Amino acid sequence: MAAFAFNKIVIFGVGLIGGSLARALRERAGATGEVVGVGRSIKTVERARELGVIDSAVFLDDDRALELALRGADFVLVAAPVAQTEPLLRRIAPFLDASTIVTDAGSTKNDVVTAARAALGERVAQFVPGHPIAGRESSGPDAAIPDLYVDRNVVLCPLPENSPEVVERVADMWLATGAIVHRMAAEQHDSVLASVSHLPHVLSFALVEMILQAPDAALKFSFAAGGFRDFTRIAASSPEMWRDICIANRAALLSEIDAYTNVLARFRQAIDTSDGAALEAAFERSRTARTVWQHGGAIKAADDSAQ
Amino acid sequence: MAAFAFNKIVIFGVGLIGGSLARALRERAGATGEVVGVGRSIKTVERARELGVIDSAVFLDDDRALELALRGADFVLVAAPVAQTEPLLRRIAPFLDASTIVTDAGSTKNDVVTAARAALGERVAQFVPGHPIAGRESSGPDAAIPDLYVDRNVVLCPLPENSPEVVERVADMWLATGAIVHRMAAEQHDSVLASVSHLPHVLSFALVEMILQAPDAALKFSFAAGGFRDFTRIAASSPEMWRDICIANRAALLSEIDAYTNVLARFRQAIDTSDGAALEAAFERSRTARTVWQHGGAIKAADDSAQ
Repeated sequence: MAAFAFNKIVIFGVGLIGGSLARALRERAGATGEVVGVGRSIKTVERARELGVIDSAVFLDDDRALELALRGADFVLVAAPVAQTEPLLRRIAPFLDASTIVTDAGSTKNDVVTAARAALGERVAQFVPGHPIAGRESSGPDAAIPDLYVDRNVVLCPLPENSPEVVERVADMWLATGAIVHRMAAEQHDSVLASVSHLPHVLSFALVEMILQAPDAALKFSFAAGGFRDFTRIAASSPEMWRDICIANRAALLSEIDAYTNVLARFRQAIDTSDGAALEAAFERSRTARTVWQHGGAIKAADDSAQ
Repeated sequence: MAAFAFNKIVIFGVGLIGGSLARALRERAGATGEVVGVGRSIKTVERARELGVIDSAVFLDDDRALELALRGADFVLVAAPVAQTEPLLRRIAPFLDASTIVTDAGSTKNDVVTAARAALGERVAQFVPGHPIAGRESSGPDAAIPDLYVDRNVVLCPLPENSPEVVERVADMWLATGAIVHRMAAEQHDSVLASVSHLPHVLSFALVEMILQAPDAALKFSFAAGGFRDFTRIAASSPEMWRDICIANRAALLSEIDAYTNVLARFRQAIDTSDGAALEAAFERSRTARTVWQHGGAIKAADDSAQ
């Protein structure tokens, strides 16, 4: 694993994502720098300290403690629901050293860039937008593990204002956790994630919502089996987090919902007309792609698929 | 486990479902009767015999062997894609003893009842429609296991023509495998399964199909993670089987697709108008219901949910 050294890192949000970064840097990368956790809830940051995930715990509303925490920090990680990015960066801005590098772990990036420009002004050059793709249903400091990022994708969306050195430092930090680091434009990130993550969450929530509205909902749930279980696992995700993501990535998500609705309408038509050949061909394409994906193969677009 | 005895059972389709019944009856219930496997493919039935899943293997096209196999059978199980139910029952009909009880394992029941009436005529009284809800992605005789049905739901949809004794015998057979046996009308079965099984499969296939059509499909798949993996696990299911189910259960499935499309349109509207409160409330209802379901609790319909 890549060596990685720092004097002090300040993590806003010491749950699964922030806490796992802290544990990875210490337990996997052997970093010995100070780790400060900051949170909205005293209970959560205190719990993280008890668990040894962080060295010291700071309450977000404590001005003096926050100023001391940020003084001389090499890194700041913002690991909170995306809607909190702007208020958090505004809170951090007055205490930020010129040499501190700030990054985030938000699931959307266009809105985070907008928030960072608004909150940091010219100092946005210190901010490198990032997204470790490593979500789970579990949350809180107890869910933090040192291996969360091993072989996971981390996407960085560098700004024109970022120096190459600043971006490299953030990339090195994630590499030290065992992650694979990619770079792409914020718009591209948001479109890709809308398709393979945000849309499936919306679709999964929608299935449970639909069944709940049926008069025989209890009967239906009682016969739900393995397929339902896997399909709806992500419907147990945090409502607050997913509310924020849906709104933050609205444009890309609406476009994906529309594309999906069109495919579903096409399937509906094939079912309505008992067009078994069209259904079987589409299901076969899906099965092949899903199987190739599962085994790590490259997948080609179905340019020649039946429309 | 309930004791269960028979002299001979003939299983059409010795894959996961049929093969697991054979193994359950022998290895769990201690039954010592003869198990005959019948298949379209000599290779598959021979493999089942080699594995000891069945005692003897019969090729479906072999008239003489089929006649001998069915002579004196207590039970016949049809465990094949639902579209094959009618041709299989027509094939069986000429050789069927008056005392043989026939049942099936099809995922849809209305169409199976229609097929059975057409194929068996008055002898439909010998046919008890059934559905063990125990599908997996794995298939073939090698996938058959004795414990597949333990604590799984089996639904029987008895016909008015069935005698109570005939229905009881089929129920006893499934109870002997460790399953929980329910009875309901075929229409109700098809509506429930359309909602919690058939629709999720269609939705999962549709997501993979949609991503495949994107010009940057390969990039999108390369950033798909755990949520996508679980959501699309069922998109690796058998295209032939799911083509048949979609067409066999067309009416109920179309109704579920329409209800789902309405919920998705409502979510789309909330995203479009940045109505965070509506999104969070719906996601919270889904999470609660999904969590209660996972822990085996009873779920109430959301009569008072926001429309």
